Amino acid sequence: MEFQDFFPVWKDLTPSQQKKISENIGIRSVPKGTVLHNGSQDCTGLLLIRTGQLRAYILSDEGRQITLYRLFDRDLCLFSASCIMRSIQFDIVIEAEKDTEFWIIPAEIYKSVMEESAPAANFTNEIMADRFSEVMWLIEQILWKSFDKRLADFLLEESAIEGTDVLKITHEAIGSHLGNPREVVTRMLHYFQKENIVKLSRGTVEITDKDRLREICGEK
Amino acid sequence: MEFQDFFPVWKDLTPSQQKKISENIGIRSVPKGTVLHNGSQDCTGLLLIRTGQLRAYILSDEGRQITLYRLFDRDLCLFSASCIMRSIQFDIVIEAEKDTEFWIIPAEIYKSVMEESAPAANFTNEIMADRFSEVMWLIEQILWKSFDKRLADFLLEESAIEGTDVLKITHEAIGSHLGNPREVVTRMLHYFQKENIVKLSRGTVEITDKDRLREICGEK
Repeated sequence: MEFQDFFPVWKDLTPSQQKKISENIGIRSVPKGTVLHNGSQDCTGLLLIRTGQLRAYILSDEGRQITLYRLFDRDLCLFSASCIMRSIQFDIVIEAEKDTEFWIIPAEIYKSVMEESAPAANFTNEIMADRFSEVMWLIEQILWKSFDKRLADFLLEESAIEGTDVLKITHEAIGSHLGNPREVVTRMLHYFQKENIVKLSRGTVEITDKDRLREICGEK
Repeated sequence: MEFQDFFPVWKDLTPSQQKKISENIGIRSVPKGTVLHNGSQDCTGLLLIRTGQLRAYILSDEGRQITLYRLFDRDLCLFSASCIMRSIQFDIVIEAEKDTEFWIIPAEIYKSVMEESAPAANFTNEIMADRFSEVMWLIEQILWKSFDKRLADFLLEESAIEGTDVLKITHEAIGSHLGNPREVVTRMLHYFQKENIVKLSRGTVEITDKDRLREICGEK
């Protein structure tokens, strides 16, 4: 499987646009934990994930984090090339959450293709709309959903992503995902444990009653 | 001043694209308070503001509001035509905050122009990136800025928009803008009044010490 198979609008590009991209892409592998992009000054380029997992988050002045969204195989990371659009005025951090292999299209190459190709521009639009929708969902969660629901949601999502009920994650890390201090996470996890919904041990949260978690989310 | 002068990429469109838009746009005037768009099922079309002011907000199940952004003369309202992009999965409400006159481009017409015109697609991209940035700013405000700063910010912005220090606005309405219950707004306004920063009377908030407000915002 090559780049062409992973890039959705490849066949809608002209031969010269295809050539321009082919001649300029690179492939990179990074270990888990690598920060690939940090703030709007950084213009790494567009990343197209071959395998792995990236996390996009924002960071407060005091070092608090909140996860905006995650990217998986075949996803395109647009905001690592935020300089291609002058209207993008916010800083996000992109970090590899697993060992990740990706293609990288230099920002100025993608920009020049997008400027002349309506399919590429519309594809970019759809990606941005998609990320926008994820961020809007997050706002509604933060504003209107209480923390027990958000934590239950997070544990279920994490369990689906990892394919296991035994999550290797610290309370600190959960706090970073949800934008809450560690103490708030610990308090709620202990509440869940007393209710026999999870079992806690050092660095691990084991989900023991998924149905109850779904109930808390309001899904049942 | 006609539509052509208000629509930034007009001259980058082909004559046939210009014709398609010209033949299908309409102009409409609505009084203050009119809801122009309500949720993602509603696909009114793109609105280009000639004069007036629109407010975009989200609404919780319990009826709480929070203002996402405002649109002024020459701004283009994209999310009133959210059906043109399948990835837009959130519901916003667009309401005229003043008497407003605008052109309306039917969604399917704009979509068909955008599909073939790279300039139109890239222009749409920039608008979306712009709104995205405003929403990201809002998230950071909500997550990381304390309410006194947010209220001070809001009063300064409102005063700049209205061109007066005497704001005719209820505590309820401020709460809707900021996503907080009325009681929280009232408590903080009373605190500001005790500090001689504002003077409150029925339906009015008068700013009496702008420097202090700026100080609270951290601008000084």
